Amino acid sequence: MNFKYIQKTPLYKTFSDIGKRIFLPEGIFYWARRAKNEAELIGTIGSAYGFEKDFIDGGSSDWMPCYLKEISEYSNLMIQDIVTYPSIGGLLETREIWKEWIIKKSFYNEEKEKEKIKNLKRYITTPIITTGVTNGIFQSCTLFLNPDEKVILPNKRWGNYDNIICKFIGARIKSFEFFEEQNLNLDGLKDAIYDVGTTQEKVLILLNFPNNPTGYVPTKEESKNLVNLLKESQVSIKKPLIILVDDAYEPYVYTDDVLSRSIFYDLYELEEDVIPIKLDGITKELLIYGGRVGFITIGLKENWFETDEDLETLKKEIDNKFEGFIRATISNCNHFYQSLTQKLFNEKGIHQIIKSREKVINILHDRYKKINSELARINNPKISIDPNSGGFFLFVNLDPDKIKAGEFADHLLKKYKVGVIPIEKLDENVNGIRIAYCSVDINEIPKLIERINLALDEF
Amino acid sequence: MNFKYIQKTPLYKTFSDIGKRIFLPEGIFYWARRAKNEAELIGTIGSAYGFEKDFIDGGSSDWMPCYLKEISEYSNLMIQDIVTYPSIGGLLETREIWKEWIIKKSFYNEEKEKEKIKNLKRYITTPIITTGVTNGIFQSCTLFLNPDEKVILPNKRWGNYDNIICKFIGARIKSFEFFEEQNLNLDGLKDAIYDVGTTQEKVLILLNFPNNPTGYVPTKEESKNLVNLLKESQVSIKKPLIILVDDAYEPYVYTDDVLSRSIFYDLYELEEDVIPIKLDGITKELLIYGGRVGFITIGLKENWFETDEDLETLKKEIDNKFEGFIRATISNCNHFYQSLTQKLFNEKGIHQIIKSREKVINILHDRYKKINSELARINNPKISIDPNSGGFFLFVNLDPDKIKAGEFADHLLKKYKVGVIPIEKLDENVNGIRIAYCSVDINEIPKLIERINLALDEF
Repeated sequence: MNFKYIQKTPLYKTFSDIGKRIFLPEGIFYWARRAKNEAELIGTIGSAYGFEKDFIDGGSSDWMPCYLKEISEYSNLMIQDIVTYPSIGGLLETREIWKEWIIKKSFYNEEKEKEKIKNLKRYITTPIITTGVTNGIFQSCTLFLNPDEKVILPNKRWGNYDNIICKFIGARIKSFEFFEEQNLNLDGLKDAIYDVGTTQEKVLILLNFPNNPTGYVPTKEESKNLVNLLKESQVSIKKPLIILVDDAYEPYVYTDDVLSRSIFYDLYELEEDVIPIKLDGITKELLIYGGRVGFITIGLKENWFETDEDLETLKKEIDNKFEGFIRATISNCNHFYQSLTQKLFNEKGIHQIIKSREKVINILHDRYKKINSELARINNPKISIDPNSGGFFLFVNLDPDKIKAGEFADHLLKKYKVGVIPIEKLDENVNGIRIAYCSVDINEIPKLIERINLALDEF
Repeated sequence: MNFKYIQKTPLYKTFSDIGKRIFLPEGIFYWARRAKNEAELIGTIGSAYGFEKDFIDGGSSDWMPCYLKEISEYSNLMIQDIVTYPSIGGLLETREIWKEWIIKKSFYNEEKEKEKIKNLKRYITTPIITTGVTNGIFQSCTLFLNPDEKVILPNKRWGNYDNIICKFIGARIKSFEFFEEQNLNLDGLKDAIYDVGTTQEKVLILLNFPNNPTGYVPTKEESKNLVNLLKESQVSIKKPLIILVDDAYEPYVYTDDVLSRSIFYDLYELEEDVIPIKLDGITKELLIYGGRVGFITIGLKENWFETDEDLETLKKEIDNKFEGFIRATISNCNHFYQSLTQKLFNEKGIHQIIKSREKVINILHDRYKKINSELARINNPKISIDPNSGGFFLFVNLDPDKIKAGEFADHLLKKYKVGVIPIEKLDENVNGIRIAYCSVDINEIPKLIERINLALDEF
């Protein structure tokens, strides 16, 4: 693969050294594919195969992957769907199913917006399967970030971004204050973009709505302004903007005035080189945390290619880059959960999945309303609640002059037997507690907030 | 975690910059653990929980992780064993089961070598669970190798090492000729060790027996000499030797004159700082390729610590380093196959697993004998077969002056409909074909070799 097309797009100059260097060598895969198509005698397959009856008592005469008969008791899937290697970039059918799912999640009207749906299908890549959303974030960050380069993130963010970006890659986080008086701090973001844009050949931004730890989702107005800001900044600094969109909590949105779908779609629609990369997975979307199935999907731009063939080649080159990353780090994503995802969509259907999940979303929605109304009753100048409309958490800021978050959490736990996660990063102006109401019974919420209130009075 | 003990061992100075920098921050995990022990009201858990009846029609009153009822049809495991997050380093019970398995695989006599078993238990770490052997290799190489540093590998090796080491990490491979007239080329290895040892503060070597692509396993004599060479080199160059032992094909050994267990055990027994790291997994050992469950286990040295407490702290520090790597790259390994591994060992037992697998090993053993005897009948100076006694493959060298491996494989495929994997790295003196007899019916082997013979005559 010579990456002729990728090199012609603005994507290429955003790649890190590893990103430029990595690829999946044809080697074994080229010959294995040819053998499959051309050979009568195949000596390329690196898994043990045999006639089932030769290794299983009472087995069939079928030529099968050799397996231990004991494992078949633990799953109702076919043995082939459990023991064999899936393809490096993921089972093609699962990838295509997820692409359909992403199109569905755009909420484009199937009757009235046919053209938009057709374009979306055409210009987004077929999702590459990673081992969970974390792995998607890791692979993407590695694709773009060299050591010491900067990525823009809000001060309120998932702590594991710091592990991936700073500790592992050795890159840096350009942090901006997330909120300005209960609104998205667009000025702060703008400053960060211009700051990074003057020293780097690309600007990388990671967005996560609903946000962990705050539960924040931009209002429709804020979202429009955000998209405009990104568009105008790109035009102004004339360097590509890569927007990593961490959609882990995508479906969990509880109010009508906020963005009801991933911001990926609005960014994808821009003609400018604001390039969105969607990172999502079955983890929270299908409530299968332990499945470790995530997806990376890139929104390509219409003006990057002239012919359909160019587009297809570009997609293959992008696939090959990610397959190179996956081969070098995990080989492939586990088979069982890829099969399970496929079967859920094929055998149960999108409608049924959404219906079953709706019950869970409703439970969380009720807790969301309850905890916010309980918190609203606390009239204490020492705290403020960050705007929140979705996700699994909310965030209570504590006045750092009066209360340190760590000390507060310790006191709350010792005296009131209430466990929360304190986040205390004073250098980034973060001092507060994250409450995971996703795992608290609604009937316990008043008591939980009451105890927090009592503890507050003691500081 | 201050890594006080690790810094006192020779391990620490072998770490890469990332290896020195990475750790798993206490943060969330510290507070979540405390909440679990101390709280009545827990708001730390980032997964959705509820009463089963509230999200499943006909569900129980149990407080459960919220799940889609449709998924329960596809597995006989408990819902908790499928949907929830496993711990970052792996389910503790699965890790302990695998440690017992490693002790079993030492073949120490349970009656006569009790002391050795006790020591093994004491001085090896509890395996950390990675997402497959590839991921174990990736994590370990990243722990030790900075860009441009060298790791020693034979010229005949699994191609994916190059992806991990060169393309991803940006480190380099110091290659040595694997064989010298059908024997392990210890002189070549020795030269490589001294060469690397003069320019680096550590020497990293990756060994893989049975080897991919050759099927080579050292004879007992060779193995003894190899261990001695490593020991003496360490004493001589006075720098730690890290030996990554890729045991992917560990149980597949077909002759009695060769090393019948992993070389990890002999290296672990050395007092010198020849530090073995065992990389194995369920992939081939339990024939679950798609499971993506691998393990990293380090053999620690008795003279590194004074008290039991030091040893335990050191183990915790090592765990934390790997947990930092795992958190930053994959978060954790999938739950289903960790549970499956646990159940196989707990419910079926080691004896039963070995018995079921024995049938597969016997099938491969028969093919091994057949293919070698068929090849022995070819009396053609243009080829030579590398010594092989195990694994899934063997390797036929082609005289590079007369036949290029790629052209040969192409001809073989086009004219004789036989698929093999050519490996042509002339700069490393490799030119031949890998035959994966693990997936060829024994009755087809004579035909396969005959066609190769016919094709040879045409070059």
